[in-house]
Order: sequence, then structure tokens, then C-alpha cells
Amino acid sequence: MKIKIGIVGYGNIGKGVAQAVEAASDTELAAVFTRRDPEGLVVNDGKTPVYSIDEAKKMTDDIDVMLLCGGSATDLPEQGPYFASMFNIVDSYDNHAKIPEYIATIDAAAVNKTAIISTGWDPGMFSVMRVLFESVLPDGMTYTFYGRGVSQGHSNAVRKVKGVKDAVQYTVPIESAVNEVRAGATREMEPRQRMMRECYVVAEADADTNEIENTIKTMPHYFADYDTTVFFITEDELKRNHSTMPHGGMVLRSGYTGKSNTDESDSDKCNTDKNNHVMEYSLKLESNPEFTASIMVAYARAAYRLAQEGNFGAKTVFDVPPAYLSEKDRDTLIKELL
Amino acid sequence: MKIKIGIVGYGNIGKGVAQAVEAASDTELAAVFTRRDPEGLVVNDGKTPVYSIDEAKKMTDDIDVMLLCGGSATDLPEQGPYFASMFNIVDSYDNHAKIPEYIATIDAAAVNKTAIISTGWDPGMFSVMRVLFESVLPDGMTYTFYGRGVSQGHSNAVRKVKGVKDAVQYTVPIESAVNEVRAGATREMEPRQRMMRECYVVAEADADTNEIENTIKTMPHYFADYDTTVFFITEDELKRNHSTMPHGGMVLRSGYTGKSNTDESDSDKCNTDKNNHVMEYSLKLESNPEFTASIMVAYARAAYRLAQEGNFGAKTVFDVPPAYLSEKDRDTLIKELL
Repeated sequence: MKIKIGIVGYGNIGKGVAQAVEAASDTELAAVFTRRDPEGLVVNDGKTPVYSIDEAKKMTDDIDVMLLCGGSATDLPEQGPYFASMFNIVDSYDNHAKIPEYIATIDAAAVNKTAIISTGWDPGMFSVMRVLFESVLPDGMTYTFYGRGVSQGHSNAVRKVKGVKDAVQYTVPIESAVNEVRAGATREMEPRQRMMRECYVVAEADADTNEIENTIKTMPHYFADYDTTVFFITEDELKRNHSTMPHGGMVLRSGYTGKSNTDESDSDKCNTDKNNHVMEYSLKLESNPEFTASIMVAYARAAYRLAQEGNFGAKTVFDVPPAYLSEKDRDTLIKELL
Repeated sequence: MKIKIGIVGYGNIGKGVAQAVEAASDTELAAVFTRRDPEGLVVNDGKTPVYSIDEAKKMTDDIDVMLLCGGSATDLPEQGPYFASMFNIVDSYDNHAKIPEYIATIDAAAVNKTAIISTGWDPGMFSVMRVLFESVLPDGMTYTFYGRGVSQGHSNAVRKVKGVKDAVQYTVPIESAVNEVRAGATREMEPRQRMMRECYVVAEADADTNEIENTIKTMPHYFADYDTTVFFITEDELKRNHSTMPHGGMVLRSGYTGKSNTDESDSDKCNTDKNNHVMEYSLKLESNPEFTASIMVAYARAAYRLAQEGNFGAKTVFDVPPAYLSEKDRDTLIKELL
């Protein structure tokens, strides 16, 4: 019997989940829930039922795991606790600073259900790597690089600038910095030293492009702390060359093992006795939302299994053993992949 | 109170464990057990007690986790079950084909103890990546590359060739193959297409170097299936340039998400509707045994915690949640690394 998946919110990630559920052999899509008029939404050529979000509470027996595909700003803070009180859930809550607060509200709601929050690739897979890397090599430094890829948040910020008709923003890792870490560097690096930003902007006909460029480059938080380049292009060019959602990035840790220098007067000895190691996890994604959705489906499998064991409450990717993510049983994993 | 670690077998990995226990803030080295005369072995300038391996059975209250640092061919099949019946253990058993058999004997022995077997980087971290990668992207292909680094098994095989005084073998990943996967390839690759082998050989004074080279290159299993290059060098060069134990490698998975092509007559549609993703985990290690030892210490922490929870028996890296490997508590991990 397959794990019955429900989707709440049918945007880019929701669509990706529908496809990822199809690609897995042990999951099936039971229903999609929307705040829009369900009559107006066709999923899987009409084969998947679509309901109003208000109907979900009557369907607790029909869904094994509900995948919440809404945004972190307003959707999830409301939907997360609501659905976790009735369903096992998985989400991709990504407001890093507010995660401790969010997980507490989910944990209070998920009394008899299992909720895995903040899955996806960051938070998510990148977080898993940061923990594995640091645990294995305590004496070292971890670096996260993003890109090359489209940031929706930064694209939206540019779109709100006066005189901008449309825009796409790419986050670009600085290659020399990446190579420095790959070669064993363990120095502090500011965001500006790790990433730069490129904006492709369609200006309104009568707009002052100098003013637009200046407004973008000095925008606090989003751009002021980075080297930013602004390119003005036509609407046609934007559609033709910048309409997909690629992304990616890297987590690296460079660190040391071996004898510490007990004789501090002899600094040469320190260098020769220690051995450097570099670990790297990198992603190159043609579709950010589809990849995020695929990770969510793997964690849906884990949520289902944890719930079967009665392991309820709010969980993170740190709490899930690798075997729980796989379609294969433990013996097969040991035989084929260990 | 720190986790009290015991080491069985004080070779390269045992020495690495002693250093890694020092580098972690929550572990301490309680004792080293050896089959040699314990009088002849000095650890930590004499600060760490050294016992005969036969004394271990009297010290079950003094050691929280015993790290078995012997070899997989003869040491671990005997020591694994013996120690797992009395202690929580961690080992780096790496005979892939025999793991299912080995884990069964450990599981039978570890009735009231926790045993995490086959840690290290392969099996170990690479295995974790293979499971995570495949779970997230079921439609794709996983590739493991080794090197550039010294293989002890292959070096030993060369040393046994008639006329060879000493030798070191490097496993070298084939860069064009790595780049092909990084660019999204999902085709089958034979070992010969992924890795090549370089042997640095010191020949005996009267040896026939042509015969040595031929014997190496045609050696079944070890070299016959690979492109192998043999370099004859002096004993002095070997000592100067080939006396360290670097290693490394990569696990990559290239795969697809997105709509499957339901209209099989339209093969173009298939390509345009699917999105490619590449995940990569790579390691560059200056000291293979020290890095392996560092991973074992992280899993010792996990074994200790699982045992505290009464979660006994034989475990693999697939059974351990990331949080169990970290010195940090769960709230700190969520706050700092999620």
C-alpha cells in the first residue's frame, strides 16, 4: 500500500511535489487543497481530486502525510500548527531566524502526529551537511555559498523599485573564494566575499535607469552588503533567457586533524604535524522548486515511518536517520549502498 | 562528564582516534588495548594507560565506547562480536561484500550494547550520501570515484610482486569522467572509465623491471581492469615523496525531476520537460587514517547516546540521525545550523 500524500497550496513547489510523488514508487497523490476556487484547478488531467482547504479537516483518514507548500512569511505560521494538529506534515519553512519559535508552535500542535519542518535544501540538506561536517571535523570552518541561481526574494525586491517593470536576480558565488576554501582556507569570509548579485531589469519606458540602478545597489540588507551588477534588458530578453528557476550552491568545511602543537614556541611544528581535510557538498539544480519538492517527498516517507512508530511531535532533518528517507528497506540498503 | 573512549589496536587509525578524542570537547581517552606487550607502547607521553587486550573484559565499567581499530580481514571478524558482547563499540569494517554476514554476528552479540559498524568514509559517509542522494532523486544514477590517494590494499599487492622492494599505489579519478557527471551525464561507467592507477615502485637491484611492470598490469582484480602506469623510482624518492597517506573521492548523483514524457513518440518533449540536477559530495584528505578516525569518534558519541536510550544491537550509519553525531545539543543545532 502506498503512502497517501496531500498537498496544501498548488504553486511551484506544490506542482513539484505532485511530480515527485509520481516519480517515487511508494507514494501516491491523494488530494490537493487550495484556497482558490477548487473548480478552477485541474491536477493530473483531472485525475487528482482538488478540494477547498476547509474540507481538509474532514479527510484525516484519507491522507497519511500532508505536504505544506505555502510560503514562510504568512502561510506556514498559520497553516503549520493547524494541519499538524490533524495530520502528519512536512514543510519547507525557511525563515532561519524564526525557526526556534516556529518549531515550538508546531511541537505543541503535533500531539499525536509527526511534523518534519524546514526540509528542502537550505534549510534542509545543507543543514544536514553543516552538522555532519562539523561533527566529524571539530577543528575547522564551515562555509555556505549560494548560486548560481535565481533568488525569488531578491527578484521581488527589485520588482518593487520605482520604474521597474519586471526583473530577475541571480545570486552568484565568487569563484576565487570557493577555490580558496577548496584549497584548505579556514579564514572568516563576509557575505560580500562569498557571493555577488546580478540583476536583469526591464525598465518602464519613461524610467530613469541611473536612479533604478542606484536604488537597487544601495538597498539595505538585500544588496548594499554585496557587489551588485545591474543589466537593463528588454521584456523579450527577460522572457527568453531568464524564465527558468535554476539554483544551487555549496557547503564546504575545511579543517584539521592531528597532533596539536604543545610547544607553542615552535610554530613550524604546528603546521607540519596537522593534516588538512576539505569536505564539500554541492548542488547544481535546473529547477529549484522541483528539487525542493523532491526532498519534501523523501521526508514525507520519513514522517510516515516515524508516525507509525509513535514518534510524534515536531522534528527537523537533524532527527531523521538516513534509512528513513529511502524507498528501500534496511537490508537492501546495507547490501547495496553501504 | 566526558564519554570514556577505549581503543583496541594502536595502528594508524588507533593513533588517529587518540588525536580525534583529544580534539572533541566531550570525549576522553580512557585506555588503549593492544595485542603487543603493553609495556612497550607509550600513548600520550605515558598519560594514557595501555593494557593487554585480555584485560579489557575486567574493565566494562571504565569504558563507555570501545573503538575497534583493527583490520577487516582477520581482526574485526573475531574482535567485533567479542567486544560487542561487553561494550558499546564502533568499527570501520570495510569488506563491503561481507557486511550483511558481519552485521548479523555483531547483532547477535550486542544484546545489551550498541554497536555501530562500518563507519569511516567508505563505507560510512559515502554510504550516507548514496542513500540521501538516491532518496531525494529516484530517477538518476549514482557514481563513486576514489582518489587521488594511496590505497593500502593495492600498495600491498604491488609489494608482493617478485623483484619489488617497496611500492606505493595511487588511485586516480579520471577527470573527464567526473566532469561528464558534473555536467549531467547519467550513463553507465565501468570502473576503468572512472579510475586509473599509478604505481611508484622501488625495484630490487637485480630485478627485471619489464617483468615487474607486466606482472602488476595484468594482476587480476587489482589492476587488470584499470589503466595502470608503473613508475620506477629510488628508495630515497619513495621515502621523500610518497610517505604520507592522502586520499579522497567523490559521490555524485545526476538525475531528473519534472513531467515524464507520456507521449513517447515525441522525444524532444521529454528533454524539454525534465530538469537535471547534480549532487556532489567530495573529500580531499591529507591523512586518510586520521579522517577515518575522526568519523569513528563522531559515531562513538552516537553509540553512547543510543545506548543511553536502550537502543541496543548492531547499527549502521543509515540508522543514526545527524543530531546524534554532534557535540552540540538539539536546540543549539536548530538555532545555529538549521
